[in-house]
Amino acid sequence: MKNVFVERQEKIFKQLSSANIFAAVLKDFEGTRNSSIRYLTGHPQDAILFIFAKGATLLVPWDINLAKEKACCTEIIPYTEFNRIFSNAVVSIFSGKAPSQFSKYLKNNLPKEQKEKIEFPGSSSWLEIKELKKLMPDKTILCRKNGIDSMLGKNRIIKDKKEIAIYREAANITNKIIDELEQHIKKSLNTGEITEAEIALLIEKLIRENGAEGTGFETIVAGPKRSWAIHPYPASSSSPVTNIGTTIIDFGVKYEGYITDVTITLTGKNLTDKQKEIIALVTDAANRTENLLKPGIPAIAVSENIRDFFAQSNYSMPHSLGHGIGLDVHENPVFKISSENKQVLKAGMVIAIEPGLYDPLAGGVRLENNYLITKNGCEKITNARIIYLLN
Amino acid sequence: MKNVFVERQEKIFKQLSSANIFAAVLKDFEGTRNSSIRYLTGHPQDAILFIFAKGATLLVPWDINLAKEKACCTEIIPYTEFNRIFSNAVVSIFSGKAPSQFSKYLKNNLPKEQKEKIEFPGSSSWLEIKELKKLMPDKTILCRKNGIDSMLGKNRIIKDKKEIAIYREAANITNKIIDELEQHIKKSLNTGEITEAEIALLIEKLIRENGAEGTGFETIVAGPKRSWAIHPYPASSSSPVTNIGTTIIDFGVKYEGYITDVTITLTGKNLTDKQKEIIALVTDAANRTENLLKPGIPAIAVSENIRDFFAQSNYSMPHSLGHGIGLDVHENPVFKISSENKQVLKAGMVIAIEPGLYDPLAGGVRLENNYLITKNGCEKITNARIIYLLN
Repeated sequence: MKNVFVERQEKIFKQLSSANIFAAVLKDFEGTRNSSIRYLTGHPQDAILFIFAKGATLLVPWDINLAKEKACCTEIIPYTEFNRIFSNAVVSIFSGKAPSQFSKYLKNNLPKEQKEKIEFPGSSSWLEIKELKKLMPDKTILCRKNGIDSMLGKNRIIKDKKEIAIYREAANITNKIIDELEQHIKKSLNTGEITEAEIALLIEKLIRENGAEGTGFETIVAGPKRSWAIHPYPASSSSPVTNIGTTIIDFGVKYEGYITDVTITLTGKNLTDKQKEIIALVTDAANRTENLLKPGIPAIAVSENIRDFFAQSNYSMPHSLGHGIGLDVHENPVFKISSENKQVLKAGMVIAIEPGLYDPLAGGVRLENNYLITKNGCEKITNARIIYLLN
Repeated sequence: MKNVFVERQEKIFKQLSSANIFAAVLKDFEGTRNSSIRYLTGHPQDAILFIFAKGATLLVPWDINLAKEKACCTEIIPYTEFNRIFSNAVVSIFSGKAPSQFSKYLKNNLPKEQKEKIEFPGSSSWLEIKELKKLMPDKTILCRKNGIDSMLGKNRIIKDKKEIAIYREAANITNKIIDELEQHIKKSLNTGEITEAEIALLIEKLIRENGAEGTGFETIVAGPKRSWAIHPYPASSSSPVTNIGTTIIDFGVKYEGYITDVTITLTGKNLTDKQKEIIALVTDAANRTENLLKPGIPAIAVSENIRDFFAQSNYSMPHSLGHGIGLDVHENPVFKISSENKQVLKAGMVIAIEPGLYDPLAGGVRLENNYLITKNGCEKITNARIIYLLN
């Protein structure tokens, strides 16, 4: 079987060739993360990746030992060779001045009759692109909305077999944690108290005990006093979680780089009519969405359906209905209601669906699960739920 | 006493006025974090901030309730008013079309005879600036290396009284954790085993128990088998930490938004001569640096001194000697050895100094502490150390 990284690289070589691009350059450092380097090579972080349409990849990592262990690529040159300056690396490589057999080969193979096109991601900074244009007047520097990001986005939106296998395991771990969490919280509230921060810490512990890399993002635990917030700050506090009102727990497991994203809501006794109404509406919205998910349906149609459903009861949701998940917690497809959103569901997508309603007095309720879009519909891979604390 | 946020805003108003800038726009969202919004207003995250040189600030937050509770600013307009699209918000505000009393006032006060200058950070994306230039042909859009980032950088590099008070508390918490960690690890190794991940989890627990917000960055625990790596991946694993060889533990406490950054090294029994040599060199380098830190010395001079010191024993350090700390873990001043680095130490700077040496066979040793630069020298505010596990 062919190495999955080789397969992914071959696909992008073809796409670059078709677009008549000589090479694309990706950068993943603090402040400018780009998980496509991990997607394409397996190298987890802190590197520049040069992708040559002719069929080669050159990695310039910060940690050379890590790269030697992890990266699937044609050649590796340590970032220190370029004094750890991005523009130095780019200019040296494309001028054939880098200490690389490969870059000499490329120099001899440059197109003679035209400037070669080099593509940078749309997220590249204004100053960086301006500098590169100045430093390399003999190249055509591209930085487009539908450039390399879009090509890689189209590839990454459909998960391949390896990714789906990883997601099944990540979901198993997530579900085990949800079960253990439910038991632990119920036990704690039977015999005493538990704080938001203690629950966040427990999740951290359960994730590590169950063999995952860590949390996919900062765990949110918002007890009854502040569950009205979408993203409370701080994400978890020393406030107690009780069995009165509603508590939102939003967390993700990172497993082999891939992130799950689930939200459970704890609901207590003596619920008000308003709280009962919100719980019922969010539960219904989750079920309605589940019935809508299938290949061919525009993501925006799903979002509009749920918006209209909530509107019938005079509620509105202050955030999107969902998002793709993968190496990043927020990936394509997006479910934003916007005329620019043309994304249509397809088999192989892995998404998070998270209906939620929030009331300043009654508190908030959110229910988030992860789904794999299948040939005929969808498969719910996680088991997040409303947990009733009735004792 | 004047609110510290008002003071910080008044300073930047003056700087913008002197530079003849009408307004600056900062953005803090997933993927484009900018902690200067928190620095200027107290609002912790997810917002756009418009700073008008005439003396007003307008916050466009994602979470309106959080902003009402936390933000010190002239006016707040929810991001949903602009359909959560950055360019919509910018264009609406500057054309006076936003639902804001304030923007009407500004419209009436625009300079009549020239295009007003609007400044965006140098990190703004190529596509974003290109779009804004197109959408607002009647404005002068600036995106410069020495623009708003540089102004705010100059202000933030010197910590004010409030920040120094926060750092004293953050350092106290950090020191308490180092002591508790030492006790706990020694006890664990006396009676059994402890893994890298268990130590990382213990740090998380101690941070929360001691009243801090959380970790300042992902905790690194690299046991004897992989302490040769600068930033091992994953940051902590299920490998055991033992009292043979060297183990690196690098962590930070986040307290009221501000981050400490310390590294301790555990060293065991039966050390090889090579290991003893590295431990001695790193300890000496830390002491040498401490004696050099004082106002007026260029950061690069300190770095070169330590580089030369290590070179005498035929060692070289694969990373910078240190960095400023603050709301971000890596701030100014930088200690990189580069002709572009002109930064000179001044009283009020808070920095992390982290000499480290790494050998593929012997393992790694790093010792990192935080210092406040004072009038006459420096004050070591943290108590990280080499911990000998001799039992």
